[in-house]
Amino acid sequence: MQEFDAASLALPGIRELQPYQAGKPIEEVERELGISNIVKLASNENPLGVSHLVKEALTDKINSLARYPDANGFYLKQALAQKFAIDTNQITLGNGSNDVLELLARTYVTDHHEVIFSQHAFVVYPLVTKAIGATPVAVTAKEYGHDLDAMLAAITDKTRMIFVANPNNPTGTFLSTEALESFIANVPKNILVVLDEAYYEYVPSDVRAPSFSWVNTYPNLVVTRTFSKAYGLAGLRAGYAVSNAKVADLMNRIRQPFNMNELALTAAMAALQDEAFLQNSVQVNAEGMAQITAFCDARGLSYIPSHGNFITIRFGANSAEINQKLLEKGVIVRPVAGYELPEHLRVSIGLPEEMDAFYRAYDEIVAEAQHG
Amino acid sequence: MQEFDAASLALPGIRELQPYQAGKPIEEVERELGISNIVKLASNENPLGVSHLVKEALTDKINSLARYPDANGFYLKQALAQKFAIDTNQITLGNGSNDVLELLARTYVTDHHEVIFSQHAFVVYPLVTKAIGATPVAVTAKEYGHDLDAMLAAITDKTRMIFVANPNNPTGTFLSTEALESFIANVPKNILVVLDEAYYEYVPSDVRAPSFSWVNTYPNLVVTRTFSKAYGLAGLRAGYAVSNAKVADLMNRIRQPFNMNELALTAAMAALQDEAFLQNSVQVNAEGMAQITAFCDARGLSYIPSHGNFITIRFGANSAEINQKLLEKGVIVRPVAGYELPEHLRVSIGLPEEMDAFYRAYDEIVAEAQHG
Repeated sequence: MQEFDAASLALPGIRELQPYQAGKPIEEVERELGISNIVKLASNENPLGVSHLVKEALTDKINSLARYPDANGFYLKQALAQKFAIDTNQITLGNGSNDVLELLARTYVTDHHEVIFSQHAFVVYPLVTKAIGATPVAVTAKEYGHDLDAMLAAITDKTRMIFVANPNNPTGTFLSTEALESFIANVPKNILVVLDEAYYEYVPSDVRAPSFSWVNTYPNLVVTRTFSKAYGLAGLRAGYAVSNAKVADLMNRIRQPFNMNELALTAAMAALQDEAFLQNSVQVNAEGMAQITAFCDARGLSYIPSHGNFITIRFGANSAEINQKLLEKGVIVRPVAGYELPEHLRVSIGLPEEMDAFYRAYDEIVAEAQHG
Repeated sequence: MQEFDAASLALPGIRELQPYQAGKPIEEVERELGISNIVKLASNENPLGVSHLVKEALTDKINSLARYPDANGFYLKQALAQKFAIDTNQITLGNGSNDVLELLARTYVTDHHEVIFSQHAFVVYPLVTKAIGATPVAVTAKEYGHDLDAMLAAITDKTRMIFVANPNNPTGTFLSTEALESFIANVPKNILVVLDEAYYEYVPSDVRAPSFSWVNTYPNLVVTRTFSKAYGLAGLRAGYAVSNAKVADLMNRIRQPFNMNELALTAAMAALQDEAFLQNSVQVNAEGMAQITAFCDARGLSYIPSHGNFITIRFGANSAEINQKLLEKGVIVRPVAGYELPEHLRVSIGLPEEMDAFYRAYDEIVAEAQHG
């Protein structure tokens, strides 16, 4: 009888995958370096935490957790449909938007297909592509952002899906409504365009694309959003896709029926109610962004102008060293070498005191290098 | 330019899928029938709720939900490894055990493969198989349980995975340690055996298989467990697989990094600490099981002897009608026609007062039929 070989039996695409590298949790840095009072600016989380409405709703739910969640997310879909003037049957709920991105790929992409995305775009796009054995096609970026013309030119008869992140993580680059709609209109209808708007709420309302309404004009368009950023629910995993109802129907057939847990459903519904929290989150982010760009300008650091809740700063050839020294001073930021940005670090916008910790740590590192 | 056709572009296996039918949530029955005081005995949930340790741990966490969960589940894996004398690198955490069952199929099975499971076995096995485009092979059951000899005989050179549920849902049937180990030993090593032990804790300890230790003897064996049943965390989605470390490494490469949310991780760790709650859950179940089998015996109802926290009772040709009348009387049980058991209904073991509601409703239905 033959021996068991765990790797050779697995799908070839999976054997070659590197797992997603998450931002280091605070506890992990504390364990590794033996330090405390850590500031985490690594994962584009909401520094304000969660709405008080979320806390109250979760506390109310704690006694009924032995019941399975509602497999259809009835109440959350109703709330989303009402808020955004869409139909509930256009919605696919996800365990974070990562889940809906994966569901889309698994519904439409096989190992015969190609999937297009931009260089420097979110790592989950190549991950879900490779996990299926499909061919990832990374299109060279233009000024760190999506080169939409080049992405159109990369389409072949094997292309089945195109991921577009707007704003993009980790670069923060942003596509105008006009450029985006022109791109979508020019993509052949047998190719799905997945528009990932995880950072949508941070974009000023006057330049936001009317993306949910586009879904009715462009049936091959799917828009994804998340509660992990401006709504502050990263720990709970709540995201969703808005699409043509037929696409949603198909995605929902392979969706794990309880993919969003009961507390995630509860928290997302409560978070939708608290417009003041959302506005405050956006405001704190805008102030932090103005401050850190001024800091960079004053220090002669270049950065990629960002429309998200983070900024990617060019520290040059010794950025890995600076990252390590920041860690040792208790400030966690995110290396982006895996995004082909080896000279940059991504810094999430935190509370004023968290940003001060970063500024102080960076200035100390520079001073130590000069006197070292 | 061609038109967009959502269905024809999707994977053929997905087009033919019916989504999982969850037990009706209490709120849904209330909405549909306009009644309240509903008793739900439909989803094999723990009627005791959750441990007080879980409630305390969740309450403590409510202020830190804007942070992403620990992508590696460091502390939960440590706790599982310690409790069960396994290595942390043998564990794959899942958003419920549904998630790890799906990860296994996606890691090892392609559309060229066959996947074997038993007739009347958990519906997620054919669902995850068809979602990939692989061929499901349902082996005719023997006395409602797995026919292991027939399952061995069904192996072909296309077989890549075999699901075995012990106890099985929805039949409650159970395989002895000897029969199970002999089966696993006889499966060729290029085929993975997935042993789903969702109801493991309800099995008396003297007849439980030492399945986690078997993983070291049989590298092609993967064992899955859940916190949804005896631990009472159905609403939170927490499950895991124990396997050869190489299998776990591969599964973890396609696992969504934050598949278990922060509160699920927190609750699972707390639940593992409360052995008294677990024992009480098992005790309440055993008492309810003794009572409902006595009830069935007294009424001349046959049932499938069950090792789970539910019992599947044969109501005969009018079982759908009985189900509907039970619903109207506020008692939700589970039809299992989709499991090729059209004459049976599955009843979860609830609290004594919940069981009384079921007994009363059934006796009323019989009396009404006799006088109708």
